[in-house]
Amino acid sequence: MANGKRVAVIGCGNWGSAASRLVAQNAACKPEFDDTVRLWVLEEEFEGRKLSEIINTDHENKKYLPGIKLPENILAVPDLKECVQESDIFIVVIPHQFVQSTAKKMMECGPLRPGAMCVTLVKGIVLTGKDVILYSDILEKELQVPCLALSGANVATNVAMEEFSEATIGFKEKEHALLAQKLFDRPYFKINCVPDVAGVQVFGAIKNVVAVAAGFCDGLGLGSNTKAAIMRIGLKEIYNFCLKFFKDASKDVVFESAGVADLITTCIGGRNVRCAAEFAKHEGKKPWADIEKEMLNGQKLQGTSTAEEVFNVLKANNLVEEFPLFVVTYQIAYEGTHPSELVKRFSVDALEKF
Amino acid sequence: MANGKRVAVIGCGNWGSAASRLVAQNAACKPEFDDTVRLWVLEEEFEGRKLSEIINTDHENKKYLPGIKLPENILAVPDLKECVQESDIFIVVIPHQFVQSTAKKMMECGPLRPGAMCVTLVKGIVLTGKDVILYSDILEKELQVPCLALSGANVATNVAMEEFSEATIGFKEKEHALLAQKLFDRPYFKINCVPDVAGVQVFGAIKNVVAVAAGFCDGLGLGSNTKAAIMRIGLKEIYNFCLKFFKDASKDVVFESAGVADLITTCIGGRNVRCAAEFAKHEGKKPWADIEKEMLNGQKLQGTSTAEEVFNVLKANNLVEEFPLFVVTYQIAYEGTHPSELVKRFSVDALEKF
Repeated sequence: MANGKRVAVIGCGNWGSAASRLVAQNAACKPEFDDTVRLWVLEEEFEGRKLSEIINTDHENKKYLPGIKLPENILAVPDLKECVQESDIFIVVIPHQFVQSTAKKMMECGPLRPGAMCVTLVKGIVLTGKDVILYSDILEKELQVPCLALSGANVATNVAMEEFSEATIGFKEKEHALLAQKLFDRPYFKINCVPDVAGVQVFGAIKNVVAVAAGFCDGLGLGSNTKAAIMRIGLKEIYNFCLKFFKDASKDVVFESAGVADLITTCIGGRNVRCAAEFAKHEGKKPWADIEKEMLNGQKLQGTSTAEEVFNVLKANNLVEEFPLFVVTYQIAYEGTHPSELVKRFSVDALEKF
Repeated sequence: MANGKRVAVIGCGNWGSAASRLVAQNAACKPEFDDTVRLWVLEEEFEGRKLSEIINTDHENKKYLPGIKLPENILAVPDLKECVQESDIFIVVIPHQFVQSTAKKMMECGPLRPGAMCVTLVKGIVLTGKDVILYSDILEKELQVPCLALSGANVATNVAMEEFSEATIGFKEKEHALLAQKLFDRPYFKINCVPDVAGVQVFGAIKNVVAVAAGFCDGLGLGSNTKAAIMRIGLKEIYNFCLKFFKDASKDVVFESAGVADLITTCIGGRNVRCAAEFAKHEGKKPWADIEKEMLNGQKLQGTSTAEEVFNVLKANNLVEEFPLFVVTYQIAYEGTHPSELVKRFSVDALEKF
């Protein structure tokens, strides 16, 4: 369709490629969107060829999403300027450390077209000093367009294989949400929308801290009821964290894929749980670096560093008392507190207010 | 304490014995309660001795909670009249089919003392014709005293072994909740209270339907994101079911042990999940009776019969369209619908309203 909105996906990693695949399927058949979906590729060589050329010729991102056919209406574009000038909807899906710099580069190619909007799929939030900053706010500020956020219980490769899953879009203006939902919703990838941009991103980031606590439960050999209690307390603390730092936070996100569903999958399986279980099994005496080396091929664990960042923000805001699970998880991970303290912290005679 | 409230536990099965153990620990040390906790025993012989005598002499319920020491301030009482006339707080923890008749028998010994109250730990709700009836309402009506409800992610034997877990008390009047919380809250058994007597009981009953759906996911070999999506949809349908049938339903219970935590443990492990997985593996062609015989020693599965009762109530109220997960779970379990329909039902192009 010549008059539909033109979509660009900024980032061609594993999730960026899977996301471009599903939005391209929708762009090809929905009148709201132009057929062509531009996929911005930070050009690199792979097996002696340019990655953009591989994608455009073989219709497969052989480096980051191998084995998955991409629709032919995906156009890999190494020129950021072309993406910026030719697009109305930007899906940003790059590692968090590059968000600010990439947004600045985009503006150097810009300004963005009138009526443009952005959807962030970036994982994480910025925890610094006393502040909790959303990547959607950074993008809104830099790009000067509205920015929504998408998150949920879904794994790029499984989405690319069209296994049924869900996701949540957080929005401020309903008209943007309706358009973003049309762009992302597929029969195998169902989208619900909530008017809570912050909640969607905060859950996506802080769930990993709860996963570390859940892993401690596993490593301590505690039963499923204890683990469910820890996950429940974690869910409530994430929600309370949203309430403390964002005025629009709502309970709605808890019911959504970005809330309870993502928390469940993250706390049942996943690297944070496995590594934290190993840590607790060794009573906190095996260094994280050794665990990362053995179990993650040296990659860094997200949950532990997020636990530290969350703790520092809570401390800077005098909120340590109100988030006992986040705090004890940090103390076990970094301050030599014995893992068994996880449950002891809640085994108190004081009654919760209600 | 001579002037404290006197507690009777009505029912000495597995959960009744574990519950009496923890309230007796509290009664022994909190001034609000009389030391002695009466445990009503429907007298029977076990190993040639009367069960009440075994409990009072050996301080162990060798039939229903073997291997666990009971506090000496538990007094097993086979005489229901003594329990009724000598008690102010009644904890009802008997199989659901005996609630009405036991309440009537209690009233024949009564009336209950002024200021008496009741806490139901009975599992289930009554689904009949167009109506959803709470055991707390049956007890309130029969006994003419206020009735609270307790439920959560906890297993009797684990509670008796003092593994850390949580529970939720649903209440109408705050002063009753404060007293019930003092009675049940232990360092290893943490109680939160919500002003939603219905929600606490409905979640406890209907979670089993979601567990059947979760088991179908396992049997179909679907991944964790799909299963998390099904659990999330189930959570939302339970909440919506509460909203449809009870005016005081609140989102609060979702955050509590009786809500999300109990749903998680029930959907991860447990008999409903295992049997439903077996059913789906055989594409719905292996009869439930055979599965129950092989996997449950002939005991009846709760989730499937609850699914049927829920479906009938929804149909009688013209609500079938609004609860697709409950409905498809029933149809797979009883109407020959193929298990793969579970996910197909949600893999539609229609967008959810928001």
